[in-house]
Amino acid sequence: IRKGVPEVVYAGAKTPEQVAKICAALVEPGRRVIVSAASGEHEAALRAALPDTPVRRSGRALVAGSGEPEPTGARIGAICAGTSDIPVLEEAVAVAREMGAETRSFYDVGVAGLHRLEQPLQELRSFDPDCLIVAAGMEGALPTVVSALVDVPVIGLPTSAGYGLGGDGSAAILGMLQTCSPGLAVVNVDNGVGAGATAALIANRATRRARCGPS
Amino acid sequence: IRKGVPEVVYAGAKTPEQVAKICAALVEPGRRVIVSAASGEHEAALRAALPDTPVRRSGRALVAGSGEPEPTGARIGAICAGTSDIPVLEEAVAVAREMGAETRSFYDVGVAGLHRLEQPLQELRSFDPDCLIVAAGMEGALPTVVSALVDVPVIGLPTSAGYGLGGDGSAAILGMLQTCSPGLAVVNVDNGVGAGATAALIANRATRRARCGPS
Amino acid sequence: IRKGVPEVVYAGAKTPEQVAKICAALVEPGRRVIVSAASGEHEAALRAALPDTPVRRSGRALVAGSGEPEPTGARIGAICAGTSDIPVLEEAVAVAREMGAETRSFYDVGVAGLHRLEQPLQELRSFDPDCLIVAAGMEGALPTVVSALVDVPVIGLPTSAGYGLGGDGSAAILGMLQTCSPGLAVVNVDNGVGAGATAALIANRATRRARCGPS
Amino acid sequence: IRKGVPEVVYAGAKTPEQVAKICAALVEPGRRVIVSAASGEHEAALRAALPDTPVRRSGRALVAGSGEPEPTGARIGAICAGTSDIPVLEEAVAVAREMGAETRSFYDVGVAGLHRLEQPLQELRSFDPDCLIVAAGMEGALPTVVSALVDVPVIGLPTSAGYGLGGDGSAAILGMLQTCSPGLAVVNVDNGVGAGATAALIANRATRRARCGPS
Amino acid sequence: IRKGVPEVVYAGAKTPEQVAKICAALVEPGRRVIVSAASGEHEAALRAALPDTPVRRSGRALVAGSGEPEPTGARIGAICAGTSDIPVLEEAVAVAREMGAETRSFYDVGVAGLHRLEQPLQELRSFDPDCLIVAAGMEGALPTVVSALVDVPVIGLPTSAGYGLGGDGSAAILGMLQTCSPGLAVVNVDNGVGAGATAALIANRATRRARCGPS
Amino acid sequence: IRKGVPEVVYAGAKTPEQVAKICAALVEPGRRVIVSAASGEHEAALRAALPDTPVRRSGRALVAGSGEPEPTGARIGAICAGTSDIPVLEEAVAVAREMGAETRSFYDVGVAGLHRLEQPLQELRSFDPDCLIVAAGMEGALPTVVSALVDVPVIGLPTSAGYGLGGDGSAAILGMLQTCSPGLAVVNVDNGVGAGATAALIANRATRRARCGPS
Amino acid sequence: IRKGVPEVVYAGAKTPEQVAKICAALVEPGRRVIVSAASGEHEAALRAALPDTPVRRSGRALVAGSGEPEPTGARIGAICAGTSDIPVLEEAVAVAREMGAETRSFYDVGVAGLHRLEQPLQELRSFDPDCLIVAAGMEGALPTVVSALVDVPVIGLPTSAGYGLGGDGSAAILGMLQTCSPGLAVVNVDNGVGAGATAALIANRATRRARCGPS
Amino acid sequence: IRKGVPEVVYAGAKTPEQVAKICAALVEPGRRVIVSAASGEHEAALRAALPDTPVRRSGRALVAGSGEPEPTGARIGAICAGTSDIPVLEEAVAVAREMGAETRSFYDVGVAGLHRLEQPLQELRSFDPDCLIVAAGMEGALPTVVSALVDVPVIGLPTSAGYGLGGDGSAAILGMLQTCSPGLAVVNVDNGVGAGATAALIANRATRRARCGPS
Ligand SMILES: Nc1ncnc2c1ncn2[C@@H]1O[C@H](COP(=O)(O)O)[C@@H](O)[C@H]1O
Ligand SMILES: Nc1ncnc2c1ncn2[C@@H]1O[C@H](COP(=O)(O)O)[C@@H](O)[C@H]1O
Ligand SMILES: Nc1ncnc2c1ncn2[C@@H]1O[C@H](COP(=O)(O)O)[C@@H](O)[C@H]1O
Ligand SMILES: Nc1ncnc2c1ncn2[C@@H]1O[C@H](COP(=O)(O)O)[C@@H](O)[C@H]1O
Ligand SMILES: [Mg+2]
Ligand SMILES: [Mg+2]
Ligand SMILES: [Mg+2]
Ligand SMILES: [Mg+2]
Ligand SMILES: [Mg+2]
Ligand SMILES: [Mg+2]
Ligand SMILES: [Mg+2]
Ligand SMILES: [Mg+2]
Repeated sequence: IRKGVPEVVYAGAKTPEQVAKICAALVEPGRRVIVSAASGEHEAALRAALPDTPVRRSGRALVAGSGEPEPTGARIGAICAGTSDIPVLEEAVAVAREMGAETRSFYDVGVAGLHRLEQPLQELRSFDPDCLIVAAGMEGALPTVVSALVDVPVIGLPTSAGYGLGGDGSAAILGMLQTCSPGLAVVNVDNGVGAGATAALIANRATRRARCGPS
Repeated sequence: IRKGVPEVVYAGAKTPEQVAKICAALVEPGRRVIVSAASGEHEAALRAALPDTPVRRSGRALVAGSGEPEPTGARIGAICAGTSDIPVLEEAVAVAREMGAETRSFYDVGVAGLHRLEQPLQELRSFDPDCLIVAAGMEGALPTVVSALVDVPVIGLPTSAGYGLGGDGSAAILGMLQTCSPGLAVVNVDNGVGAGATAALIANRATRRARCGPS
Repeated sequence: IRKGVPEVVYAGAKTPEQVAKICAALVEPGRRVIVSAASGEHEAALRAALPDTPVRRSGRALVAGSGEPEPTGARIGAICAGTSDIPVLEEAVAVAREMGAETRSFYDVGVAGLHRLEQPLQELRSFDPDCLIVAAGMEGALPTVVSALVDVPVIGLPTSAGYGLGGDGSAAILGMLQTCSPGLAVVNVDNGVGAGATAALIANRATRRARCGPS
Repeated sequence: IRKGVPEVVYAGAKTPEQVAKICAALVEPGRRVIVSAASGEHEAALRAALPDTPVRRSGRALVAGSGEPEPTGARIGAICAGTSDIPVLEEAVAVAREMGAETRSFYDVGVAGLHRLEQPLQELRSFDPDCLIVAAGMEGALPTVVSALVDVPVIGLPTSAGYGLGGDGSAAILGMLQTCSPGLAVVNVDNGVGAGATAALIANRATRRARCGPS
Repeated sequence: IRKGVPEVVYAGAKTPEQVAKICAALVEPGRRVIVSAASGEHEAALRAALPDTPVRRSGRALVAGSGEPEPTGARIGAICAGTSDIPVLEEAVAVAREMGAETRSFYDVGVAGLHRLEQPLQELRSFDPDCLIVAAGMEGALPTVVSALVDVPVIGLPTSAGYGLGGDGSAAILGMLQTCSPGLAVVNVDNGVGAGATAALIANRATRRARCGPS
Repeated sequence: IRKGVPEVVYAGAKTPEQVAKICAALVEPGRRVIVSAASGEHEAALRAALPDTPVRRSGRALVAGSGEPEPTGARIGAICAGTSDIPVLEEAVAVAREMGAETRSFYDVGVAGLHRLEQPLQELRSFDPDCLIVAAGMEGALPTVVSALVDVPVIGLPTSAGYGLGGDGSAAILGMLQTCSPGLAVVNVDNGVGAGATAALIANRATRRARCGPS
Repeated sequence: IRKGVPEVVYAGAKTPEQVAKICAALVEPGRRVIVSAASGEHEAALRAALPDTPVRRSGRALVAGSGEPEPTGARIGAICAGTSDIPVLEEAVAVAREMGAETRSFYDVGVAGLHRLEQPLQELRSFDPDCLIVAAGMEGALPTVVSALVDVPVIGLPTSAGYGLGGDGSAAILGMLQTCSPGLAVVNVDNGVGAGATAALIANRATRRARCGPS
Repeated sequence: IRKGVPEVVYAGAKTPEQVAKICAALVEPGRRVIVSAASGEHEAALRAALPDTPVRRSGRALVAGSGEPEPTGARIGAICAGTSDIPVLEEAVAVAREMGAETRSFYDVGVAGLHRLEQPLQELRSFDPDCLIVAAGMEGALPTVVSALVDVPVIGLPTSAGYGLGGDGSAAILGMLQTCSPGLAVVNVDNGVGAGATAALIANRATRRARCGPS
């Protein structure tokens, strides 16, 4: 089956050389590969190995290859609270865009300052997204709060930004799993790829039905 | 905002009397309340307290109240492997139907007998769902396997059907969170309400865009 | 030293008979004993053993004994989201009142409906409390949200109202410990006694300094 | 609302360059920023980026910026047992001082040598603090012991000084949460910022009431 | 080898009938069997099955059989803080006495009231024990505090008297394992048999060397 | 007893020098030593210390020494899904070969692409193995799926290839322990040595009985 | 494929009525069904529902149905230490026998009395089994000790017989996974069915090769 | 009180400079300080800072200072299985010797080769120790096995030598806590100081009574 999920190389447990070699084998004209959890060393090795291939960073992901994804009309909103969450959120955004979605990101939205939610929510309402990705570390409450204020599905993306007991992202993911706002589903800690792919499948399904007309 | 999520009373930590009293306060003509994690005692107390109100069981949930939800055109497939998963899956189905979705359920689909997947998957393809809910206990691998074979988003619903180490549903939920098939998002163990509500939000969004035409 | 913390009998691991016997030994005219985590059986045994002693229920606590605590002028606000949290919150309130504090309780305040916060917060501002106790189960985010909106210290009181992974109160307590709103300190799951005693020590200190005048 | 909590940059998961850049954006004449969990590299980068800004170390925190906090009259005692606890305790102290509190620290006070408690407790009694911060690693019993000997609220600050099972601070925090001395509330492991901010809110509330006179 | 550890039947996971049957097979004139973790039902079944055999309760243990252990001259002190710890401590005492030790018990000794330690410690010094057993639940700090004040080895006996996170005895055992007072070794939660046997081996070794004279 | 398990040096917690020294003491003509969990540094030190000894790498193991194992006729299939699993699987293979087994490896077989299972399974059927080793990280479902499709015992070998919650191999091992396909037994995370030795004992037993004829 | 694993109904989470109904649907002349984790209530309901069907108890399993399994020539030894382990071990034995294996059981073999191992091991050597199942609770060391003394594969079967920290079988399973005796593989806590099925697959494979002659 | 426990500096969380400075302050003629968990860098810094002070390594501990402890006549046996356990065991030995005990160590004694126990046990019997320290990693079964074969108390010293699930010493410590051989008490993972001090207190008590004669 063709789901449109792009080829993803998880760099987390691989050396820069391994990543460069795998990408060299995968990249072909007009198609792109995503390298997730890519460090600066991964990026350098990739650029050195593929000097003629465009490489673009999006958070902790790299998008390597030429061309652009075909737009599907899908729309996804992306929200997080702190600077620490941005790299993971933008990894999700990179995957969603590769799957044809248009995205809009908001970064400074936190539960310890709820007034900062108003402006982004208003902008999101006029953007009219099919789905939201909400990333949060610490106590991971932001997706619950947002989910209660919107009428589209929310993908909770817990991040490992935290400290002390539960600070490896386990407090955040448990908080999202315990949500008191039905309509929120979750991916694993720092799993930007999963969040982006799920959100794009949701949004692409919506546009597919829209193209076919109501049934 | 109006999301269409029905009123849900979580019976898990409440006495039959408490549940009956809360429902009595909530039920009104033409509207329904869902009682989740409802035991036989909860059901009996509810029927005794509201003798004129229709009460229907759907897995471990009860749907109390008259009337029927307005169909939205949304379509949701529901799959599980073992008999132990059915009550939780049907709780999810009850919520999704209250939100206007049409659902189709398949019960005997397991990873230790993959041939049993073929027939349901074929039926599901012609049903053309907007989203799938896949419930699994034990090692929780079924949602991953299914997700790899379909092009719509999958909500993984881990159940507490298991034994020994990890048998309280933690092996199942960890397995789903570790999925190697992007496009799968997860709710908490036995959280049928969350799975049903998220799936319905996904599917209702799709039909909403379909009604508006492509944009 | 005299801290004013009342005598507390933890009924959790004791039989009704043991509780009744211990209270009979402790109660004396004009002084009261608090029985925490008291079931209906504990209450019945206590009333039977001490037929002439006033026994008052406050959430899952009992206050046994005659007389009233001396008011200190301390003021404490008490907030929770769900009906499941009320018994634990009111145990905290009972302890705080025995230590001389005036209290005000608000019960229907949740993160999945932030507008419900406005009215209680406004009432609290005119009450002008020295300290807040905020109880929450599930993802335990309410104390963080409240703490960001007030300028007094907040005691987070996690409750064991939850489901699935982390549903025994561990998600709630981890969420409070990971708070992104400095000014929130925490007691153990369902520890109403600890929350009430700490809040009252905070508020009583404030009134003590007020009585002495600025130094 | 104005709580007086200073701007805090958590350096734990940030590079020296990121920290220096964020501080450069935040610092302005007469205002200070606190960098928590700051390594020597963080400090060097900060000093290099802001050569004209005073930078003072307080335990594992840095205080960057000119001027002094306005004294509020609040008084806070700070106690720990071992040298390993001092950096975390002094981070708490830095935050409390920035919020206007006067502080007094005692370092060599342990449960395995209770006689060493006498002298500090006597000094503390004449200092007459509004609140105590007690830091401890290992079994984390010191806050319980201290709390039983004073009549003001105690903030328990568990540290990650330990070894073997539970040695990452989880034994210490569990011990404090299980305290048998009501009047002790807890922040997360190594969370000096939270301890300092909560203690200062407690003490500042007391002085605020004192200034207004008894009500 | 002959260690003198009595026959122990662990009743925890056995029915009253099983316990009675096993004891009937083991008991013989002049020898005794210890039934650990024995409920009232276990006791009743045992007395019914062995009407002519003396059965004595010691905390949550039963000692069934006639005769008395041979005194060895060993001396063991036994200390705990709360009423909840007594049944486990007295199980340890029963085992130690069956191994020939003389014991002395103190029950109301807690870290949240250190002055209550003075009297028992003074009595213990004149008793001159070879070893101490110190039982504690909650934060389990008592063995550490005691160990710092005596010059004999201490066996820490954590009990499952606690609440909330860590309240099943895990906070207590972690606290004892993290002790900052060298000279304290630990047995498992509620393992009175292990504590009593180890203490008696320690004390019996001392008396054995004493009988042989210095070498 | 002679089980044929080769001498294994676990390099995980040893320095390159320690490993080289131990191997130098163990290696003798015609016999081989296996170094498990060997890094490049371990390999370099070993080659430098034993310049005349053949050293062969097999995944994360090294085989040091001359000669070849005696073939027993045993046959073992080895399967894994991702590149990250190969080093651990090949460590198992090295041990099995040293015990006289013939092995066949398949690397690109995953649960999120079940069609990729067909070709290897067909090849395996004609190879006719006595036992399979199936390595998997992430959700660890592959051994369950394979076990359901073969009639020989399967050794599940969980690997630490994963991310987020459960990503250290604990999701994988829990999933294998929760298998719904009886006939699967498990070794610890990344324990290639245990998997290889168990598989070879199984297969060697089969050939031993075959050599003796049916009994 | 035909593996010979019998139909198993896991009674653990089912009511007596559910179990009886499922068995009634499965049983047919000459074939048997195994009910695992069957209580006395399950047994009574089954006998009542199927009065003409032979029902035999084997530990905590029931074997329901007429006829006998076809002997395959496979031989399996079964060992445990305490009475608490016997029900789980005999469940494994029931499964292995249904798969055609001959079994021999030894019950009183413990690591705290190693001399008791001698007699059983000698008997086992003359029985010449293809595989051993070794069940143990508590610290779970018995399989390791046995595995070091035999040259056939060992299936470790951890049981939930234990107390305090790790007493739910997690200490036992961790101990087996950490074994220092290669050649031991493990199934989940109390998973007699898995142990029996794996052991029988191992032994049946051996006899199958024996029947075909050496290849 | 004077217990004879030497001054111990825990180097684990301290820099070489900190350790050298603390030792310089503590060391005085004829007295020694123990540095536990000391790396090579700690040792170098110490030797550089105190060029005239004798420094002796004993496993992962250093003994710094002149003179020798006064022999008390106490005798302690020390046993471990693997090379990885030796550094921790010898840290315990260093502490025990500083407290005046004579010690005897045995290193190659494992549960997967029980015959290797015979020789050491025989030597130990003629040494006639007052107490044993038994260190073990992995499944931690050695102390249980040894304890069953001797009539003196055993201190179990779990080490962090392990792999995979439970490999940080938690399997080892849980196994020792679950021991089926009463007479075994435990210290924390890698806590050589605690094991040595407890063993010496036990043995010194025995000699003290011996010196006083039987009472
Ligand atoms: N106001 C806030 N509300 C909720 N979470 C926050 C807030 N500020 C920061 N965080 C979380 O704290 C973590 C660290 O944030 P930062 O220091 O900005 O990188 C991130 O995971 C954020 O999600
Ligand atoms: N809107 C909400 N926001 C936050 N927590 C909530 C909300 N509603 C319920 N809860 C929590 O959910 C748990 C169960 O609530 P209830 O069903 O009302 O007893 C309690 O611990 C509440 O704290
Ligand atoms: N006497 C003591 N009582 C209680 N805790 C202590 C004592 N000495 C040290 N500690 C704790 O042990 C840890 C290490 O102390 P140090 O080695 O002095 O850095 C710190 O967290 C201290 O809180
Ligand atoms: N001597 C022993 N050696 C090893 N384990 C034992 C021994 N005795 C009992 N056990 C274990 O202790 C648990 C309880 O035994 P029992 O009380 O006989 O039912 C079982 O899981 C046994 O495996
Ligand atoms: Mg957040
Ligand atoms: Mg499944
Ligand atoms: Mg909440
Ligand atoms: Mg401490
Ligand atoms: Mg205690
Ligand atoms: Mg896998
Ligand atoms: Mg055992
Ligand atoms: Mg060992």
